Amino acid sequence: MSLIVKKFGGSSVANAERVFNVAKIIIEDYKKGNDVVVVVSAQGDTTDDLIDKANEINPDGGSKRELDMLLSAGEQISIALLAMAIEKLGFPVISLLGWQAGFSTDSNHGIARIKNVNSERIRNEIAKRNIVIVAGFQGLNKYDDITTLGRGGSDTSAVAIAASMKADVCQIYTDVDGVYTADPRKVPTAKKLDSITYDEMLELATLGAQVLNNRSVEMAKKYNVELEVLSSLENKPGTIVKETVKMEKTLIRGVAKDSNVATISVVGLQDTPGVAFKIFNKLAQHKINVDIILQSVGRDSTKDITFTVPKSDGKTAVQSINSLKDSLNYKEVTLDESVAKVSVVGAGMESHPGVASKMFEALYDAGINIRMISTSEIKISVLIDAEYADKAVRAVHDAFIS
Amino acid sequence: MSLIVKKFGGSSVANAERVFNVAKIIIEDYKKGNDVVVVVSAQGDTTDDLIDKANEINPDGGSKRELDMLLSAGEQISIALLAMAIEKLGFPVISLLGWQAGFSTDSNHGIARIKNVNSERIRNEIAKRNIVIVAGFQGLNKYDDITTLGRGGSDTSAVAIAASMKADVCQIYTDVDGVYTADPRKVPTAKKLDSITYDEMLELATLGAQVLNNRSVEMAKKYNVELEVLSSLENKPGTIVKETVKMEKTLIRGVAKDSNVATISVVGLQDTPGVAFKIFNKLAQHKINVDIILQSVGRDSTKDITFTVPKSDGKTAVQSINSLKDSLNYKEVTLDESVAKVSVVGAGMESHPGVASKMFEALYDAGINIRMISTSEIKISVLIDAEYADKAVRAVHDAFIS
Repeated sequence: MSLIVKKFGGSSVANAERVFNVAKIIIEDYKKGNDVVVVVSAQGDTTDDLIDKANEINPDGGSKRELDMLLSAGEQISIALLAMAIEKLGFPVISLLGWQAGFSTDSNHGIARIKNVNSERIRNEIAKRNIVIVAGFQGLNKYDDITTLGRGGSDTSAVAIAASMKADVCQIYTDVDGVYTADPRKVPTAKKLDSITYDEMLELATLGAQVLNNRSVEMAKKYNVELEVLSSLENKPGTIVKETVKMEKTLIRGVAKDSNVATISVVGLQDTPGVAFKIFNKLAQHKINVDIILQSVGRDSTKDITFTVPKSDGKTAVQSINSLKDSLNYKEVTLDESVAKVSVVGAGMESHPGVASKMFEALYDAGINIRMISTSEIKISVLIDAEYADKAVRAVHDAFIS
Repeated sequence: MSLIVKKFGGSSVANAERVFNVAKIIIEDYKKGNDVVVVVSAQGDTTDDLIDKANEINPDGGSKRELDMLLSAGEQISIALLAMAIEKLGFPVISLLGWQAGFSTDSNHGIARIKNVNSERIRNEIAKRNIVIVAGFQGLNKYDDITTLGRGGSDTSAVAIAASMKADVCQIYTDVDGVYTADPRKVPTAKKLDSITYDEMLELATLGAQVLNNRSVEMAKKYNVELEVLSSLENKPGTIVKETVKMEKTLIRGVAKDSNVATISVVGLQDTPGVAFKIFNKLAQHKINVDIILQSVGRDSTKDITFTVPKSDGKTAVQSINSLKDSLNYKEVTLDESVAKVSVVGAGMESHPGVASKMFEALYDAGINIRMISTSEIKISVLIDAEYADKAVRAVHDAFIS
């Protein structure tokens, strides 16, 4: 008998038929004698409808507190419907809003962070042998106002409950059946992984694998919550995410593409101390994450600095550098959005120096030029022209995984 | 400078345009320096959509707790949208759910009664000069579960806040511009009343005038909250409801029709002591309200008892009497749903004995047969064939009010 936390996304409960499908998955585990706590997102169409309504009132986007009030109604609807379906199938169930389930957050409406989960109410309901359905994505701040956790927040809600209750496993149901060595829609030879470490998963999530939300993996790592990514449509084991996993014969765990990237070049910079500091300090003030940085060797008395930022921050980054014009001597700032980042991830690579050369060889064989390179202990990323991204993923993937 | 509580129903906030219309009404009073607390119902279509979703999951109707969880999302949406509109127009505002506004109720999900309103949060927001938007129809029970107040609950929410905060007036906005001496769609000569007493309003509400919810008028009377019924579409004074009002030259305040009525006859009852008790005790156990009762003078050793019940309870009433067959000796029970009740209401009539005869004369002149009669200090009701109901209302109305 285990305590299992399950999380279902908006598309898994999009209509009555899917709600009953989810209800049956839950009941199956409950009937085996397990305690089951379920976190649900808002139905896909509900969230869209609510955003439409808000835009009708204020197209410029209004108070984030009121937007949280509005959007959190979405999970309220889905938890009630899922509870009704489980009840209809004859099993004891209760739905709980974020605050009823004990979620305390900070006051950053729209992107709130969970401070604490007081799981007393959930424990009491479980003690009565109720299946407990919890609204994901939402909590309450110290002023008793409803907050939402931002993108992927329901994953984080599920992990937070699992951590608070020391659950045996936290199962994240998605529309794919696990974590793959590459995007299976793009790479036909992609293989499903039985298991992966938190760190590998974090690199893959950051790199655009889009299976699990980053914050949820970070939290799972911090509290040592075993995650399982699995399909809500097929009844079979998914991919386990945990601290250490046995390395299989392949050196790398996956290949990921990230298209949300742009390069910025500051050309003809006067080569004096502190220029790099000025640039990156300014970007940090605007909360822009800089990833790969490349600094040219100085010619005459100038140099160039090129770096990558998320594509959505590109224009802001250029503006903020231009605002330094008075204190920074340079020729021009250019923005290039036609790039993509391709990365290989695997905890095994740090003890295998051949990984980088094998990756570069695969790209060379495919005729793809590398513009920038970045490495960490468990990943190697290259920046290439966006048009070759899918081709690069296939070439690199097939070089390592067969 | 006054404290004003305003209540807007679902049709008043049905779309973005109407939400802004309501926002402007609120702002107008706020700009005069008043403190304004607003109670809103769910948007008409939202409630319908939510009920459709619930029926899709469980057509038999499921747990009332979960239905309350579902439906209360409706007001959550409307308060957020109204707050966004007021904010967009440049005024400080905050929306509060029932529990945030301090509504404690009993645990009768779907028909909960308000036990207490702790208005501390509302007072704090008003002290900051915020316009406060409160979700009507909902509260929280002692288990921290969301409850709903049932039909017309938002009126009751508004009066409860007004009572708790000793507001100067509680304005109930509707799609009519006040309380009329009869239904203006049926009686062209109907006149709008400037004012009416709580008791008169209660009789009119009970009798199907459908302007104000009964519980809200009872609560207003109990806590002496001055009500105003007015239109959300036209900017003009409505009808004031309070303890005593000056009687105008007409003796009566209004004429109302109630079509939700059926008569039940228990025919050929053995005339022994206790038979009436048995019948009405049984009906009380089933929570069926009996209105007019007529007992025939006994012939041989039997008598007939005829009484009226709400049409919706008719079949249940017949069944529950039939369940007494063993202990009650009677020939048959009949149900007649083709009746209607027409009533005149007016605090002035108790000192004017001519009212009843004037009413009966008007009906006689119109060729309408009276089947049963019931009187109280401030009303006279007659039961007639349903097909003559509108004709009867016009005839009686024109006899008294011109």
